[in-house]
Amino acid sequence: MSKYFQRGVSSKKEDVHNAIAELDKGLFLNSFCKILPDTISKSKNHYLLMHADGAGTKSALAYVYWKETNDLSVWEGIAQDAIVMNTDDLLCVGAVDDFVISSTIGRNQKKIPSQVIKSLIHGTESFLETLRSYGINIANSGGETADLGDLIRTIVVDSSIVGRIEKDKIIDNANISDGDVIVGLASFGQANYETQYNSGMGCNGLTSARHDLFNEKVRRKYPESFDQEIPSQLVYSGSHYLTDSIKEYQTDFGKFVLSPTRTYLPIVKSIFENIDRKKIHGIIHCTGGGQTKVLNFIDDLYIVKDNLFPTPKLFELIKSSSKSSMKEMYQVFNMGHRLEFYTDLDIAQQLIQISKSFSVDARIIGRVEKRHSKGLEIISEDGSVFYS
Amino acid sequence: MSKYFQRGVSSKKEDVHNAIAELDKGLFLNSFCKILPDTISKSKNHYLLMHADGAGTKSALAYVYWKETNDLSVWEGIAQDAIVMNTDDLLCVGAVDDFVISSTIGRNQKKIPSQVIKSLIHGTESFLETLRSYGINIANSGGETADLGDLIRTIVVDSSIVGRIEKDKIIDNANISDGDVIVGLASFGQANYETQYNSGMGCNGLTSARHDLFNEKVRRKYPESFDQEIPSQLVYSGSHYLTDSIKEYQTDFGKFVLSPTRTYLPIVKSIFENIDRKKIHGIIHCTGGGQTKVLNFIDDLYIVKDNLFPTPKLFELIKSSSKSSMKEMYQVFNMGHRLEFYTDLDIAQQLIQISKSFSVDARIIGRVEKRHSKGLEIISEDGSVFYS
Repeated sequence: MSKYFQRGVSSKKEDVHNAIAELDKGLFLNSFCKILPDTISKSKNHYLLMHADGAGTKSALAYVYWKETNDLSVWEGIAQDAIVMNTDDLLCVGAVDDFVISSTIGRNQKKIPSQVIKSLIHGTESFLETLRSYGINIANSGGETADLGDLIRTIVVDSSIVGRIEKDKIIDNANISDGDVIVGLASFGQANYETQYNSGMGCNGLTSARHDLFNEKVRRKYPESFDQEIPSQLVYSGSHYLTDSIKEYQTDFGKFVLSPTRTYLPIVKSIFENIDRKKIHGIIHCTGGGQTKVLNFIDDLYIVKDNLFPTPKLFELIKSSSKSSMKEMYQVFNMGHRLEFYTDLDIAQQLIQISKSFSVDARIIGRVEKRHSKGLEIISEDGSVFYS
Repeated sequence: MSKYFQRGVSSKKEDVHNAIAELDKGLFLNSFCKILPDTISKSKNHYLLMHADGAGTKSALAYVYWKETNDLSVWEGIAQDAIVMNTDDLLCVGAVDDFVISSTIGRNQKKIPSQVIKSLIHGTESFLETLRSYGINIANSGGETADLGDLIRTIVVDSSIVGRIEKDKIIDNANISDGDVIVGLASFGQANYETQYNSGMGCNGLTSARHDLFNEKVRRKYPESFDQEIPSQLVYSGSHYLTDSIKEYQTDFGKFVLSPTRTYLPIVKSIFENIDRKKIHGIIHCTGGGQTKVLNFIDDLYIVKDNLFPTPKLFELIKSSSKSSMKEMYQVFNMGHRLEFYTDLDIAQQLIQISKSFSVDARIIGRVEKRHSKGLEIISEDGSVFYS
């Protein structure tokens, strides 16, 4: 039985996909997010988008780090995480503006005092202000904070988002084609709209990252931060403590993993302002499923990724600490880029230039080939791995 | 220290209100929900509404009942609960149509298999179908199911909703006036759009209802259904088991408390179709805070409630089991009506008639008087209680 399964998570969520198999998929079968008719303003020229997601178990790490250090700022990062998991899904269908968000916080009141709620709210507002400073119109409808100690060990932070998009502006991954090149936008580094170095973490793979990186001192000190039914050898089974220093990045392990999820919104907004979006065939947000996410959106194409970014320090640390194979790592983590564009070579060069103008590294990481059945091959110095 | 506090909940959520005190309140200070400019379709004639809420700890009761009986239908009720907590807040500002919802399910994968997710999804779809059969346009954008065992003991079910309303159709509780009468719409009984008798539970006060009604056999069998840090004398400290029969209602205690939250949408839609809504000065959804909820929306008025429905069986059982005072009961539970209208005497009679045409009992439960400072007095056979 896999370590992931024993910890109660699956990067592929097979049983959830099975449970929702009969649900209406919306107007586009291969779009990254469900696209609805605009039943609210009833415009014939628009589609409606509504989406929900959250910070996941990253909040369990924020909790232990805050308890250990009293550093409330990590909650501002969690607020950003919950928002970006929504905005950066929606940008994959072409929506980069005119959003409204709401937040749902479920907490154990015995563990989470109002100062944490305040930091989450402050983090939400200040992150929205940053987006607005890049011309992105995003309103905050508020939300709900519920006391759910019988359900929640510490805290769950979710957001939902609504937006509208002109019909002719939709990016539909059904257009990904034989001959496309793939541009990856780095998840690590420091964008010119970020205030500190970003390890590239995002919000996926946190159950693995937390338990594989951090050590049994976390288990002993913070039993409320994990499910007691996980086999104890899989709980915080790594070798680092939260406050162990990572000198080359002038931070510590806790804060390195807690890097707020980078948003690509300012970059993608600029891309749509400068490039004919009809030439962008697809956009993938490498969240659950990591580098294999694209497989959910293609049919008879073969994806070759043979020029990924060198594995960032964070994922190297997780790999060596967890003794995971590269095959597993690519399925759980973004491994260096969390956003990828499918387009032609000429547009690819322009995307890279725009991304770099925001100090976010970008490169052609692979290409699309025609085959009889779908597949994905990732080729690196460590060899080649195949997914189907 | 109060029992509520020791169990980690507060009907008034003072510390949350404190934490969000500086947040923008929207365009109307006294409206039941936050009202936003329509920044999405940019209509000058509309406001935008977005709201988030959930089934709360009612899902902990659904969990133990399902484990005990294998009855998956309780999850369909939880799906309805999470939706109605949103729709019936929005109807208080006048919005009864053109909604889109999304769902967020957080689960412990070790406890919650995919068949539960399937039942939640089926419950969502079938409840939306019921609403649609009453002419209510409500779309489902899907949502997210996350495996969060390190955060969640069993399952958390939340929804969010978005809608739009013509500016001149807003119901603003700032219009509640001296001389208004209050019409209450019953939370119990069987509406003609419900398939079974409804105990009136709703989604508030469930932490109290669960622990005060049910007995230590639940504690022993289902330790995953409560916070181990609650003093044990306050955990499932009642005298009933989940499957104990309540003969007069041909059901058992578990299912009686799990009655899905009644929606008032079909009734309120009919009210707005038949009555000039300008004559409705305010609408209150008696959720957190129960019968005292109105105090959040008035300034210098005095509310007298002297003709409430006789306390329904459910709340009688909770009161005797918990040995709570009437003063506490009114603050935690709806006690018989979950929706109240503030209007004049003539309109009141028409509202009552419309409600009864849906087999939902209604009556004038009180009135509004002018005073120098705000207050609420509830007068019953048990005497008078005062809140400010």
